[in-house]
Amino acid sequence: MGDAEAENTLAGIGEFGLISRMTTGRVQPAGTLLGPGDDAAVVAAPDGRVVACTDVLVEGVHFRLDWSAPDQVGRKAAAANLADVAAMGAVPTALLVGLACRKDTAVETLTGLVDGLWAEAELAGVGVVGGDVASSPTLVLSVTALGSLEGREPVTRAGARPGEVLALCGRVGWSAAGLAVLARGFRSPAAVVGAHRVPEPPYAAGPQAALAGATSMIDISDGLIADLGHVARASGVLLDVRSRAFDMPARLVDVGAALGVDPLHWLLTGGEDHALAATFPGPEVPDGWTTIGAVRRGEPAVLVDGRLYDGGPGGWDHFAR
Amino acid sequence: MGDAEAENTLAGIGEFGLISRMTTGRVQPAGTLLGPGDDAAVVAAPDGRVVACTDVLVEGVHFRLDWSAPDQVGRKAAAANLADVAAMGAVPTALLVGLACRKDTAVETLTGLVDGLWAEAELAGVGVVGGDVASSPTLVLSVTALGSLEGREPVTRAGARPGEVLALCGRVGWSAAGLAVLARGFRSPAAVVGAHRVPEPPYAAGPQAALAGATSMIDISDGLIADLGHVARASGVLLDVRSRAFDMPARLVDVGAALGVDPLHWLLTGGEDHALAATFPGPEVPDGWTTIGAVRRGEPAVLVDGRLYDGGPGGWDHFAR
Repeated sequence: MGDAEAENTLAGIGEFGLISRMTTGRVQPAGTLLGPGDDAAVVAAPDGRVVACTDVLVEGVHFRLDWSAPDQVGRKAAAANLADVAAMGAVPTALLVGLACRKDTAVETLTGLVDGLWAEAELAGVGVVGGDVASSPTLVLSVTALGSLEGREPVTRAGARPGEVLALCGRVGWSAAGLAVLARGFRSPAAVVGAHRVPEPPYAAGPQAALAGATSMIDISDGLIADLGHVARASGVLLDVRSRAFDMPARLVDVGAALGVDPLHWLLTGGEDHALAATFPGPEVPDGWTTIGAVRRGEPAVLVDGRLYDGGPGGWDHFAR
Repeated sequence: MGDAEAENTLAGIGEFGLISRMTTGRVQPAGTLLGPGDDAAVVAAPDGRVVACTDVLVEGVHFRLDWSAPDQVGRKAAAANLADVAAMGAVPTALLVGLACRKDTAVETLTGLVDGLWAEAELAGVGVVGGDVASSPTLVLSVTALGSLEGREPVTRAGARPGEVLALCGRVGWSAAGLAVLARGFRSPAAVVGAHRVPEPPYAAGPQAALAGATSMIDISDGLIADLGHVARASGVLLDVRSRAFDMPARLVDVGAALGVDPLHWLLTGGEDHALAATFPGPEVPDGWTTIGAVRRGEPAVLVDGRLYDGGPGGWDHFAR
């Protein structure tokens, strides 16, 4: 390998060269008290608590670099974590990234990943405050997000009570439709393919819901029915989703018709859009939220129009046979 | 694959089955305000700040499961991060783990990894508060540690001043000697092989040094000279290490003689023991710390007995050609 070529790979610039590209010229928000470059970062936790979560994305499993540009993968990895923070009713305060990749990974790819992480972090008002890079045959991105509850109690999955309303904020089914399009070898419509490449979680809706008295909340990452199942079990309630409550997007109807798929299936089981679902005492729900069902007494379960949904696999278990 | 066999792999128990094994029956410390099982954890940050760092370990690069038991790998992954927290002068408060592994990974292996993470976390007084599991062809562990500065300022790499003393707490060279033994196909002496498998970072020495007025501090993860180089550059000083200041362990002398290696080379360049190096105004250093050199005015560099050390590669860059 010539020097010119090597300079364009991770092996050429080295671990510290990559870290420099990750950190140089980036602007940290005020809450980053000590940014990258030391053994650890220091981040403000104004109310004496910190919200923390980790999400792992693996090439070939969660993304394909022939289907998504590197910056889109970076944005998606950040979004998955930032949405988890929002789902506690918290505002994000920082990201850390563990990156494992091949030595011959192009610097352009790595720069794209990092630019994407930063772009999504900035959308949520935070910075990438630290991380680590390691050599690995498989590209793996492990992102940790931190957040602040701003003095509020966390909104967990366990607070839903019978008689409350179930509401949703953000898109569901779009990423699944985009994935179906890509899997058939198409690259359009751009709206659904773009939704698969870069989700648009409603970060501000998390704290908004907490302030409005949400009794439970969850990030829809594996599919609406699957994730509502966690709320049902944690809260000991039955959740009844009304399929007609959704505004079925015309775009999903069109894509469904073209691919021979009922678009309701994508809405109910598609993951990776990172919408937020929450329960409220009701009957009102905050602006931007849509009531999609009700909380009832009963064995923990998720029903659609009063029945168990049998339209296909109910969600996404990474290791299911 | 038969059901009985499948039950013993990740594919058999599924993502949520594994998470249950990670979390059920584990005891969280009081600072874990909300443990695993929701979108995110909530951890106490008593002084309104949180220390955070991430470290990635990759099978075949940082560990081999034919050289280390799974619980030893888990302990090492946790230790690398907990030592980074200590190197800021902070006490650890929580761990999160991103685990990527093959679907056919034995449950016994995964349980071992998690038991190891928990064992080391408990040594440091913390719990594993969250994480994620994903399917991946390569086993990757990305661990994030959080910590509390207990009201103190962080001890960075940038505070060393000419005239101060350079001191060390913890072992150096042992892990490198153990790795050399394993690489030659041996499994003993147990003391050095064990040091490679499970480092013993002096966690309490970090806050101790901060209370004693340490002006800079770093975790020795890549090798003493390499890591002191970060302190020299960040502080704008020259660090002069005295090779005779070390108590050369008889065990390393023996192993060096057997393998034809100068054991001083392991002391000066061996990584992964996670000792702490710090500078103090001096001349006294805290109990348990050994003065190993001096801080001098000059172009940032690390000298050994007044000269650049030329005994071999000066450290460990994961992507160096």
